[in-house]
Amino acid sequence: MYKIAVDAMGGDDAPTTVVSGVESARDQLPNVEFILFGQLDQVKPLIQDMTRISLIQSDDIIAMADEPVKSIRNRKNSSLVMAANAVKHGEADALFSAGNTGALLAAGIFLVGRIKGISRPALMTLLPAIGGEHDVFVMMDVGANADNRANHLYEYGILGSFYAHEILHYENPRVGLLNNGGEEDKGDQMHKDAHQLLKTGHTKHLVNFVGNVEAANILQSPADVVVSDGFTGNAALKAIEGTAKTIMKTLKNSLSNGGVRAKMGAGLLLPTLKSMAKQWNPEQYGGAVVLGVKAPVVKAHGSASPKAIAAAMVQIESMLDSNLINKVDTFVTDHKDDLAARMDNK
Amino acid sequence: MYKIAVDAMGGDDAPTTVVSGVESARDQLPNVEFILFGQLDQVKPLIQDMTRISLIQSDDIIAMADEPVKSIRNRKNSSLVMAANAVKHGEADALFSAGNTGALLAAGIFLVGRIKGISRPALMTLLPAIGGEHDVFVMMDVGANADNRANHLYEYGILGSFYAHEILHYENPRVGLLNNGGEEDKGDQMHKDAHQLLKTGHTKHLVNFVGNVEAANILQSPADVVVSDGFTGNAALKAIEGTAKTIMKTLKNSLSNGGVRAKMGAGLLLPTLKSMAKQWNPEQYGGAVVLGVKAPVVKAHGSASPKAIAAAMVQIESMLDSNLINKVDTFVTDHKDDLAARMDNK
Repeated sequence: MYKIAVDAMGGDDAPTTVVSGVESARDQLPNVEFILFGQLDQVKPLIQDMTRISLIQSDDIIAMADEPVKSIRNRKNSSLVMAANAVKHGEADALFSAGNTGALLAAGIFLVGRIKGISRPALMTLLPAIGGEHDVFVMMDVGANADNRANHLYEYGILGSFYAHEILHYENPRVGLLNNGGEEDKGDQMHKDAHQLLKTGHTKHLVNFVGNVEAANILQSPADVVVSDGFTGNAALKAIEGTAKTIMKTLKNSLSNGGVRAKMGAGLLLPTLKSMAKQWNPEQYGGAVVLGVKAPVVKAHGSASPKAIAAAMVQIESMLDSNLINKVDTFVTDHKDDLAARMDNK
Repeated sequence: MYKIAVDAMGGDDAPTTVVSGVESARDQLPNVEFILFGQLDQVKPLIQDMTRISLIQSDDIIAMADEPVKSIRNRKNSSLVMAANAVKHGEADALFSAGNTGALLAAGIFLVGRIKGISRPALMTLLPAIGGEHDVFVMMDVGANADNRANHLYEYGILGSFYAHEILHYENPRVGLLNNGGEEDKGDQMHKDAHQLLKTGHTKHLVNFVGNVEAANILQSPADVVVSDGFTGNAALKAIEGTAKTIMKTLKNSLSNGGVRAKMGAGLLLPTLKSMAKQWNPEQYGGAVVLGVKAPVVKAHGSASPKAIAAAMVQIESMLDSNLINKVDTFVTDHKDDLAARMDNK
């Protein structure tokens, strides 16, 4: 039986949506127990069925706008810190929140703790791989770090490959480096160095590096794992999400202003548009994951639906079932010299 | 009478499309002469009417994949280098190419030359400003520089503001810094420094700085001028363009696979989709501009239509008519101490 520590107070519509997602996940996952941390006078009345759900009172809430690291240090009674500490002390196997992303990252890194040998845990997300062999690809770092060094990006190649192989079941996942051109001398010094590290890793069969990929076509499946520094990865991810949203909004506005003809057209297109929207919604595969820490730590969007939250719980169970963390740990230990040498070099 | 030096051999379909664009521009712009550099056995037969068009033979072509700086140094007989040298020697007032972007940048910086006091010329492009007061906004640097310092971004704020004011006629253009969060302490050290420089510039009324903007909503008009380091700006621009293209392609595929119902819907929606596509096509406002050099240097997409090329020529005429370069030059000279002090600090 696995235990997931849940920050019941994180998310735009918490605790309502979180509780609803947890109950749906509980019905799908007979081997999982859920420990909900939150304000019990609010949480308890929402629960339909207490099977495999336990509750722990927390008096404080870290809000979306609160400063992450300070909050994690000072607000010991918050639902997020209490849930993270439950993982730290072995009372739970994994951590989930739909709240403040920075605070969850800080909780993952400082409370759950880094895997020994991983220098910088990162935030990983799944994006649609249009027209590729698989439906989604792994992208990291999408914002845990503002300043990265080349060896971090090499580690992301390894961490992302483990996720793609163990959880998504991709054979020999292709790793690409997000850069501003295809040739190996493209980019600033850090990206040139990262390219060389990944290339060396490829010759040693540690990663299946396929070279640089560009933001222009990362959605068209040039790689199964796209590694990036956190600053650029964040900008690219936000640009992709923002553009998709803006186009959908423009389309909607054009339809409402397009008169009867446009409205009839839209009506006829509804099934097509819905299937397209589904393809563009990788939430069905789970949430964003803090990779490189000692337990599964997963973040759902603040506005995630109960269905998306349940998908994140299924994702956490896969991570526990596949023994992902231990496999990464063993790999890093076995290749300690390799990784350490790389860090000295760069 | 203005003279534009045209690289007739640059672009996917050169010289055909370039010649056609030039002739269309010539018909719209009675005060402009065009000097076409290229292989005259190919170029000459394409021209319908030689009014205000002159031709100069060049034996060499810099291809899309050629290494930019080396090509500019070594290939003196290429159409691009000869056109750039015509500007350098005062035989033409501006430079146009639809060919190799890096080579045009290098030609702008090394042959046309930097404006004194501008440390790093940058590539500027226009993007749609959905739902804003204006139709487009200025974004720079989108890829001239892989490694930027904070003072470069401050200069981009000034250069971009001049373009927005003089060419687009925006009153007091709002300058935003592309960063990974809204608060002023967001980003790596360089972005924190750039924020402070722009903030100081704002208190001195040199730029109208409105703070950080995020990639998630830059299309929704948070600023009239978005400044960015070249690496991130390139990634964000490519991600925006790539996402828009991918969505349009998915939509098209969904339509062809959606059966009769979807096809009828698409037919009814055609005018709506066309007006939307027009809104998303800033080529109607011209090409990408190398800002910070001593003459207008403008790049059209390799796949630009004759219409888009003509729009770029109209844009060049506006830049010449408004005396943009001299105004920037005077401003930089007048505020030399201000700008130099900033450069010492960072």
